[in-house]
Amino acid sequence: MSKPYVLGVDIGGTNTVFGIVDARGQVIASDSIKTRKHSNFDDYVAELHDGVERLLKANDAEDKIYGIGIGAPNANYYTGEIQNPPNLPWGPIIPLAEKVSKAFGGIPVAVTNDANAAALGEMTYGAARGMKDFIMITLGTGVGSGIVVNGQVVYGHDGFAGELGHLVVKRNNGRICGCGRTGCLEAYCSATGVARTAREFLEVRTEPSTLRNLQIEDITSKDVYDAAVAGDKLAKDIFEYTGTILGQAFADMVAFSSPQAIILFGGLAKSGDILMRPLKEAFEKSVMPIFRGKTKIILSELKESDAAVLGASALGWEAKYRYEVPSFDRSVPAVEEA
Amino acid sequence: MSKPYVLGVDIGGTNTVFGIVDARGQVIASDSIKTRKHSNFDDYVAELHDGVERLLKANDAEDKIYGIGIGAPNANYYTGEIQNPPNLPWGPIIPLAEKVSKAFGGIPVAVTNDANAAALGEMTYGAARGMKDFIMITLGTGVGSGIVVNGQVVYGHDGFAGELGHLVVKRNNGRICGCGRTGCLEAYCSATGVARTAREFLEVRTEPSTLRNLQIEDITSKDVYDAAVAGDKLAKDIFEYTGTILGQAFADMVAFSSPQAIILFGGLAKSGDILMRPLKEAFEKSVMPIFRGKTKIILSELKESDAAVLGASALGWEAKYRYEVPSFDRSVPAVEEA
Repeated sequence: MSKPYVLGVDIGGTNTVFGIVDARGQVIASDSIKTRKHSNFDDYVAELHDGVERLLKANDAEDKIYGIGIGAPNANYYTGEIQNPPNLPWGPIIPLAEKVSKAFGGIPVAVTNDANAAALGEMTYGAARGMKDFIMITLGTGVGSGIVVNGQVVYGHDGFAGELGHLVVKRNNGRICGCGRTGCLEAYCSATGVARTAREFLEVRTEPSTLRNLQIEDITSKDVYDAAVAGDKLAKDIFEYTGTILGQAFADMVAFSSPQAIILFGGLAKSGDILMRPLKEAFEKSVMPIFRGKTKIILSELKESDAAVLGASALGWEAKYRYEVPSFDRSVPAVEEA
Repeated sequence: MSKPYVLGVDIGGTNTVFGIVDARGQVIASDSIKTRKHSNFDDYVAELHDGVERLLKANDAEDKIYGIGIGAPNANYYTGEIQNPPNLPWGPIIPLAEKVSKAFGGIPVAVTNDANAAALGEMTYGAARGMKDFIMITLGTGVGSGIVVNGQVVYGHDGFAGELGHLVVKRNNGRICGCGRTGCLEAYCSATGVARTAREFLEVRTEPSTLRNLQIEDITSKDVYDAAVAGDKLAKDIFEYTGTILGQAFADMVAFSSPQAIILFGGLAKSGDILMRPLKEAFEKSVMPIFRGKTKIILSELKESDAAVLGASALGWEAKYRYEVPSFDRSVPAVEEA
């Protein structure tokens, strides 16, 4: 293969990580730049290009890049743009694929949001290898999702499908969500959701808990996890509550696309049995009888440090957008006969 | 085209309707047999075959059938079987595609459940022409759904995806559903769901209503519709309640697959503004801001009398299962060297 590598780029709110990846999912080399250093997007792309060129040179990989895959918040697969990103210094519409392909001399580029990139990474290199129908759920600051149906990421008619963190799990009196509505899954089952549950439980309930030794506003999901692992009853109840809501929501997801597996990724997903036991119990109890026992709930097999770059890189193999140097159109316009 | 027609077959609990359909979606001719006459499935297939042959002969369409599409409850697209049907006299596993293809001399056959067939019909001949992402919702005795993503029906890993009538819309104290769980959309927003709401409202509320002139156990969704159209406040409130729950559920569906349209089919869908106004209001209020104003909620464009046959027939164009007369295997088994 003359072009044996792809470039994976993960644009986060703080860092932009990029790596050279081979067809087996080995990250040959990676580096990063600061995302927010340049308020001008062209300057950012120029610095990204310089950084990548250095990395390619050092690894004897110049002219060996088949395509570039980019994961970024609010990136739209169809248009190649980042649209109205909440955490980036540019916008509102950033022609990401076009600018990057142009900077790299026309190498094909494809972009998608981070959760879809994670799903692609899992399908290409991770726990979903060989699966055609699965759902990737990322449990981080928020709850993200990437849905794969029949071997393809579900983008929807506008490119924004797969917002399962915003299924409404509490119809009445639900928590306010960052999306502007109330009761979303993300407001309960993200890392921040767990911290919110802790504050709620500590206020409403009266029993002792080691969490009461902390400043209530500073409690994190990690604090709750540590307390639960140490045997704190209230902390364990918080995970019971979180897992139950997640499991019930998973039952609705299965009614939609009947996936072979739901794959969990992100910090909270690594909570082990204190989350997974109530989650699986609620899921099996809630899922429609015809689906019972069919959908596995498993953990990502991607190394967390590599996952974002790997996921983005997987998109590089199917990248199609290619910047072409504009050429003068010499064709004679057809004249319709009267 | 030497084979310009497909055969559409809709197997219902009472009647099996079949029709000859051309590529433009014209039903050239149709007829039906009783589904439950034969307790032996082979006898049923033989009668179906006879009926179809008569219809083909009368319409000079022998040897002009490209493929056969069959819609049936619990039919599995992948296996070609009907699996554990609740309302059919055969089972538990019925090798539908195989038996029908064999009876028809090897014409390719494809099967799917009725809601997926409706979605295919709508995409091929109806309101979803040109759409690659939409959701079909059938509001009948139950709530059925067919989901199309990227131009393909979503079957899931087991062939049973698309059970949106069983999204859980009431987590606590929900109504018992036919699926064995509680709180499903179908228990509220089907024709029987509307009748249940009527009984609930009449018991709990005290204001006068013309519905009180009826035997409470005999009230149908049609009675509620007639009363609402005549201006009965309680009957209108029942549709308000039904439409609101549907609209909220549609918001969750959009978070999943971001469809261009949600298309309604079935008796209840024809309730007009008394259902559609609260439905659309609740939907626009509930849907995530990034999807707001993007997804149309529209009615099926298929004639109800033709729809089931048309939907099933659409599958005939992509039918692949083909029964082949078994032949003696003359190949010599390979012997592995020691």
